[in-house]
Amino acid sequence: MTVSRDDVKARLDQISHLLERHRVLESLAGRQGSEKRDLLAHMQRRENLVELERRLRGMHPADLALILASLPTTDRLIVFRQLPPRETGLTLVELDDEVRASVIGELRPDELIQAVGALDADDFAYLAPSLPDDIVTELSATFGSADRSWLVDTAAYGEGTVGRLMRQDVVALRLDQTAGEAVNQLRAGVPLPSQTDRLFLVDVRHLLRGSLPISELIRGHPDTPVADLGIAETAAFRPSDPASRAAKTFERYDLVSAPVVDDLGKLIGRITIDSVVDYMRDASDQDALTRAGLRGAEDLFAPLSESVRNRWPWLALNLVTAFAASRVIGVFEDTIARVVALATLMPIVASIGGNTGNQTVALVIRALALDQLRDTGGRLARKELLVSAVNGLTWGGVVGVLAYGIYRSASLSVVMTAAVFLNLVVAALAGVAVPFALRWAGRDPAHGASVVLTFVTDGAGFFMFLGLATVFLL
Amino acid sequence: MTVSRDDVKARLDQISHLLERHRVLESLAGRQGSEKRDLLAHMQRRENLVELERRLRGMHPADLALILASLPTTDRLIVFRQLPPRETGLTLVELDDEVRASVIGELRPDELIQAVGALDADDFAYLAPSLPDDIVTELSATFGSADRSWLVDTAAYGEGTVGRLMRQDVVALRLDQTAGEAVNQLRAGVPLPSQTDRLFLVDVRHLLRGSLPISELIRGHPDTPVADLGIAETAAFRPSDPASRAAKTFERYDLVSAPVVDDLGKLIGRITIDSVVDYMRDASDQDALTRAGLRGAEDLFAPLSESVRNRWPWLALNLVTAFAASRVIGVFEDTIARVVALATLMPIVASIGGNTGNQTVALVIRALALDQLRDTGGRLARKELLVSAVNGLTWGGVVGVLAYGIYRSASLSVVMTAAVFLNLVVAALAGVAVPFALRWAGRDPAHGASVVLTFVTDGAGFFMFLGLATVFLL
Repeated sequence: MTVSRDDVKARLDQISHLLERHRVLESLAGRQGSEKRDLLAHMQRRENLVELERRLRGMHPADLALILASLPTTDRLIVFRQLPPRETGLTLVELDDEVRASVIGELRPDELIQAVGALDADDFAYLAPSLPDDIVTELSATFGSADRSWLVDTAAYGEGTVGRLMRQDVVALRLDQTAGEAVNQLRAGVPLPSQTDRLFLVDVRHLLRGSLPISELIRGHPDTPVADLGIAETAAFRPSDPASRAAKTFERYDLVSAPVVDDLGKLIGRITIDSVVDYMRDASDQDALTRAGLRGAEDLFAPLSESVRNRWPWLALNLVTAFAASRVIGVFEDTIARVVALATLMPIVASIGGNTGNQTVALVIRALALDQLRDTGGRLARKELLVSAVNGLTWGGVVGVLAYGIYRSASLSVVMTAAVFLNLVVAALAGVAVPFALRWAGRDPAHGASVVLTFVTDGAGFFMFLGLATVFLL
Repeated sequence: MTVSRDDVKARLDQISHLLERHRVLESLAGRQGSEKRDLLAHMQRRENLVELERRLRGMHPADLALILASLPTTDRLIVFRQLPPRETGLTLVELDDEVRASVIGELRPDELIQAVGALDADDFAYLAPSLPDDIVTELSATFGSADRSWLVDTAAYGEGTVGRLMRQDVVALRLDQTAGEAVNQLRAGVPLPSQTDRLFLVDVRHLLRGSLPISELIRGHPDTPVADLGIAETAAFRPSDPASRAAKTFERYDLVSAPVVDDLGKLIGRITIDSVVDYMRDASDQDALTRAGLRGAEDLFAPLSESVRNRWPWLALNLVTAFAASRVIGVFEDTIARVVALATLMPIVASIGGNTGNQTVALVIRALALDQLRDTGGRLARKELLVSAVNGLTWGGVVGVLAYGIYRSASLSVVMTAAVFLNLVVAALAGVAVPFALRWAGRDPAHGASVVLTFVTDGAGFFMFLGLATVFLL
């Protein structure tokens, strides 16, 4: 049975222990006086490394990647150098981008070439953007001409395209083959790649004509032409298609693999559910980070300067919006000087507006992502307006009563209720409008909507509350 | 080739058009005077419905589900009643929970029984929690005894377990069979279920002993025992395992299907990548909604009262925290009355603290989810503290300079810088501590962390800024 998560954790503890010992032995080796003691420490150190190597043996590259990610930068190198040689390349493939960058940055060129030299063209193509250019050039030359042109072709496709996810390990059958001939072809060839649930049918010009589930092939009579075993309808992609569309199609039609064709309809590769799942995970991780105002993931053990830079753009933007909202308050300084309670209550108006607005934003973004919104969202806007009106009266009322409890002023209480009500209406309108506007501007609504919305509800909340107070309380 | 997303949109437009006509004809039928005209309108109405039925034919249940989700409640019923009878049950399976509830709520019991009556036990088990109890009881009786006990067993597993995702459509081979015998067994049986990339090997007592990729079976010599074709190591799950662990395992080891065994190790079912992907999508959708303070997804066309209720718990919580922060400000009303600029500047201190804290929270939650944090996060806390100290000095300085530009008060400017610096340090500490505390309390850190953190940074921001001002400015 496969190594489970708990096993990985246990291994990690053992490995940390060995690394700890390694550090102690290293420092001893430096400090010891006599040559004899030096030799002893050196031997113990080697023994320790051999033990480390033994612990790493037989682990899946995905687990090795997890172990590397959990270790500080210097320990990562020690462990990486003890990896079974066959696993070094695949472990690099499995690493998260930011951890991979740290490991690759520390390896010597010859170590790097040895580590990735055994990868096939598909894995090498995946890794190439993370490798130094001269190493890519040097290693590309070692591939055959078909692989070399595959490497050039796939490198041309941008991040987030099907071209980046596709692999060339596609098994094609000729339409005019019989099931028996197909089975013999499979027996004679190399083992089938994993995630092979279907074989692709092509005509003499290698144009894609359909696909045949491998389970149908195994059940078919040897003399039946593969074309008669049922050409399943197959969603085909082009390398330039967005990966997000492929992910939706895989999800919607429960696909395991799908063909990729060129502009003429020729079969050139395939994408498989494992890379689609990785893409989905990366996209949703990146979403969560972007929403929180980070440019990307951070290696836990990255240098300080990288972490600081990762957070600055968002903080700068936040400062601009916070100052703008602050200037709105500044307009009403005279009012606040006369009714100081306003300063105490105003953050409540802004905060409840931001919260309801972000609820609307989340629902609109989900509906956009699910393709559920057909028109420009008029019906949705009406519904959100109604909900916010009900919530505005309810919570505005509650807030008004609480404010009265504290300050015993009926007029202040009414102003508070009115401001909360109005800000919730603004929040609903902005909550619908902002994601649509961002999409219309060609941006991902999931990323910027929240900051724009909070800016609107803060500014509007302060303005309406203090404005109403100026008119009715002074 | 499969219907693409654009095709679905085109179909949806045609269908909306037909529904529009349907409404016009319905209203005409009521208003027409003569019997003859009535008949004409009636005929046109029927013609229109036939046309609608024609448009729906041949579509994938997933696409039909998308179309239903995009239509208002009344239109959904009209469309649902024109669906090809074979697709009604599967379309219900494909619907999002909230849309499914609306459709099921509107159907008559006899329509519902007809709609789901043709489903197999796996799909019916999936749907059962959404159906009225009496209909579940009535339909369960129509299944064979094996299926009936399957329905009872799976119903016992809670939401978010492997038991809820598993299917019984597992193909098992006996260890002592030869490849040829296995192929003959497959030929004689029913078509293999989709997502069958591997067959499971069991011994005479039906204990799971491994699995055989179907691609290996097809390549194996007919006389070779299946046991010799390579018992691939197989991750096996129990029905009570959390679905999230299964999802991680599928993702990490690129699985397409995996066996489910009972406590004795007997093979009882399997889970497949399509249900894992659906689970991942649902979980990440729910995450995004919960983070925005919604209890769950909302049907776009749900009644107002449901939408309002969906948003209240969060707004109530928000009100409590906002009032608490407001009371912190209340303590310093005298200070504000003497230096009104403080009221203008204090939201900036709170806001920048909330933003940096949420950046930290996002990174900690990600590291927790990826199992990258081994100890209690001491190293992470140190790093975040350092980052926030650097950011606090930088942005605190910027804010101080800007405040000086507006109010020309050096002491106010220094108080502002100090408060931003201190609030960023608090934000970093809380950003690390809050997710850990929530996890320690057995809650999902992704859900409550942001609201707790913002509460801390708001309160601390107001307190430190106004407190420092009281000490140094008065």
